[in-house]
Amino acid sequence: MQLATPRGTRDFLPEQMVRREYVINTVKSVFERYGYDPLETPAVEFAETLRGKYGEEEKLIWEFEDLGGRRIALKYDMTVPLARVIAANPQLPKPFKRYQLQPAWRYDEPQKGRYREFWQCDVDIIGSDSVAADAEIVAIIVDVMRALQFEEFTVRISNRRLADRMVRWAGVPEDKIIEAFRAIDKMDKIGADGVRVEFAERGVPKAAGEKILEVIATTGSPKEVLERAEKLLAGDEKAKAAINELRDMARYMALMGVPGQFWRLDLSVVRGLDYYTGPVWETNVTKPRIGSLAGGGRFDKLINKLSGGAADFTGTGTTIGIERIIDAMTELGMFDMGKTKTRVYVAAVKAELAESALEIAQKLRQAGINAQTDLMDRKLSKQFEYAGALGIPFVAVVGPKELAEGKLTLRDMRTGNERQLTIEQAVGELRQ
Amino acid sequence: MQLATPRGTRDFLPEQMVRREYVINTVKSVFERYGYDPLETPAVEFAETLRGKYGEEEKLIWEFEDLGGRRIALKYDMTVPLARVIAANPQLPKPFKRYQLQPAWRYDEPQKGRYREFWQCDVDIIGSDSVAADAEIVAIIVDVMRALQFEEFTVRISNRRLADRMVRWAGVPEDKIIEAFRAIDKMDKIGADGVRVEFAERGVPKAAGEKILEVIATTGSPKEVLERAEKLLAGDEKAKAAINELRDMARYMALMGVPGQFWRLDLSVVRGLDYYTGPVWETNVTKPRIGSLAGGGRFDKLINKLSGGAADFTGTGTTIGIERIIDAMTELGMFDMGKTKTRVYVAAVKAELAESALEIAQKLRQAGINAQTDLMDRKLSKQFEYAGALGIPFVAVVGPKELAEGKLTLRDMRTGNERQLTIEQAVGELRQ
Repeated sequence: MQLATPRGTRDFLPEQMVRREYVINTVKSVFERYGYDPLETPAVEFAETLRGKYGEEEKLIWEFEDLGGRRIALKYDMTVPLARVIAANPQLPKPFKRYQLQPAWRYDEPQKGRYREFWQCDVDIIGSDSVAADAEIVAIIVDVMRALQFEEFTVRISNRRLADRMVRWAGVPEDKIIEAFRAIDKMDKIGADGVRVEFAERGVPKAAGEKILEVIATTGSPKEVLERAEKLLAGDEKAKAAINELRDMARYMALMGVPGQFWRLDLSVVRGLDYYTGPVWETNVTKPRIGSLAGGGRFDKLINKLSGGAADFTGTGTTIGIERIIDAMTELGMFDMGKTKTRVYVAAVKAELAESALEIAQKLRQAGINAQTDLMDRKLSKQFEYAGALGIPFVAVVGPKELAEGKLTLRDMRTGNERQLTIEQAVGELRQ
Repeated sequence: MQLATPRGTRDFLPEQMVRREYVINTVKSVFERYGYDPLETPAVEFAETLRGKYGEEEKLIWEFEDLGGRRIALKYDMTVPLARVIAANPQLPKPFKRYQLQPAWRYDEPQKGRYREFWQCDVDIIGSDSVAADAEIVAIIVDVMRALQFEEFTVRISNRRLADRMVRWAGVPEDKIIEAFRAIDKMDKIGADGVRVEFAERGVPKAAGEKILEVIATTGSPKEVLERAEKLLAGDEKAKAAINELRDMARYMALMGVPGQFWRLDLSVVRGLDYYTGPVWETNVTKPRIGSLAGGGRFDKLINKLSGGAADFTGTGTTIGIERIIDAMTELGMFDMGKTKTRVYVAAVKAELAESALEIAQKLRQAGINAQTDLMDRKLSKQFEYAGALGIPFVAVVGPKELAEGKLTLRDMRTGNERQLTIEQAVGELRQ
């Protein structure tokens, strides 16, 4: 038998699943807290549904011929399926607040943190053009990161329309605007000096580049950043509207109690070239050195475009980089759970007590405790070995003396502490 | 845009997802209660991994050529991937108790209840040859069915080795044994008279058929069924061993407190032809007329066979027919949840109060309540329409009078009852 999985795909053993499910359930519960419901779409789509939507990345679509001779593809992201669902289901009440947390496939060259099969997680609002919706998405990102116990992270927020005005105001010629954006996008990684070099290499006029740097290098409170941008771009009504949008967004976030330490305005955030139409954001952690953990923004024309005009709704939302978050949390040692969901192993000190152990395990299960007991007629030492290998946090030892007293000995496998308890007491202890 | 999904695949809108997740989470929590951990494997496997494993069904494997020219297949079930994982990970402590709940793909002709992409749910113990393990699996099935609120269901249990001995004892010639099994397998559906006809059509000698019917038509308590089988097959040591296995299994189930009303011994259960090596079972509901909801058994040679000898472990387990269960529960009207996970919609009576509504929604969220509020500047009546369309159970109305008193009006959307409550009181109410 071929023991390997296809390149860029992975088995998730229980130890990894316990961590993945913790992250996934945490993320889901935040989404649901804000009134988002789950949506799922098939792994396979007609290739024609996906084609013509991803620009240069289109070459990564994992396409194949169906047994029936049709061109089929594994889904590439959650966005095109969302547009399809919206177009196919006009009955869905708007705003349609949904999250989608499923595998996606990209036939890319696998490398650290990049897989051919990976989980993608999107949360979006379709049909609201209020900045309150954008603020809600950022509030969700902050709640997700905090729920996962990230302490140092920043959601960096800007506005695509402001960026558009800024490069024009600075005097970047029309045919160099995309080049200018590509350079600006690197500000966070390479700093102002790096961006200056990029501008030169990409043919952005020096004077224009300096004017841009003057805007994007602005730091300070949201108020300060916006006032400075307003001053620099004074007289540009479209820029002013975009600035006011960010000002409203900041107000909504304050209303929602989003702590200021976790987000800032950063006009160097550009995020893609033609997908977004309003506020945009990226989320970075101080450690480890890793890309954005959650990026998104407003996409008022995307549903129309992706659905070929079959549906036309504004929208805003974000991707939560589940795989990257799991990698970052692993690297930072943020997972403190064991390798199993089992809470207690019920061990019999000798074979004759195995059935009593089984009865006790069953009582614990009925009380809602995840419990295992021996199914292999093993000696006590082997049972302890097994519980230890799985990282089960407690072992309940059933011996003749304990049984006679209606008790068991509960051993905490981390501390080695042992206590004699009734089953009811043990249940109370194990529930904590 | 192509609005359809490929044939035999489905979108799951939030309304359906809420039901599916309820079933999936219920099933998972029972598995975890018994000490099983999740495992996931990729959607794609090398075609060679799947080939040669499924007999006639092999033609349903959804195979295709990779962009790199390799033959790849969407996974067909959870069993072959399990065997691969076991062989690839000898470090996994045994018994390996895992469940796997993921989509599988079969390129079959879609029909009612049969899809090309569907969720498969398996729970298995690898590496234990104790009948206690078989009993545990049946206890899990019973707990799953009860947790899902099925009231009338029966796990019908037999033993593949007993069936083998029975047909030989009855005098079925070697080349008609498979035919005899195929007829016996229909007992539950077509009754003794139907099986008699099947025997005749399939060339099973009349006398042998009658002897078999005498055994499999036996009803009564486990004790009665076993005693009768023991009497009929007296002198056959292998049959006796198989009967004793069932006797032990019954004893373990009694120890685990599995109510007798939910299972019985039924020697007409054969379940497949060469996969199982010990106890086997099917699970049926009285209504609706639908096939087995959970079938499985002991498969002591399967891991060895599927892994091509790369691993050799005994095992037992069951499939839970998630899709069939969801269909049955839908048909029986057993889902009483709404279309959304949102618990409350916070409505402002006029636009000027929208920000107060937002603040209140945020307080409810911080208290763990799933809450939505308006993001579209809608009138109160439109907000109620939206909450009603989504089936959100409560609406919290924020008006000037309520606000002045630090209160809100909580409306139960099902009964129409309204109460003025403080936010803390509302949280208490909404948590119930």
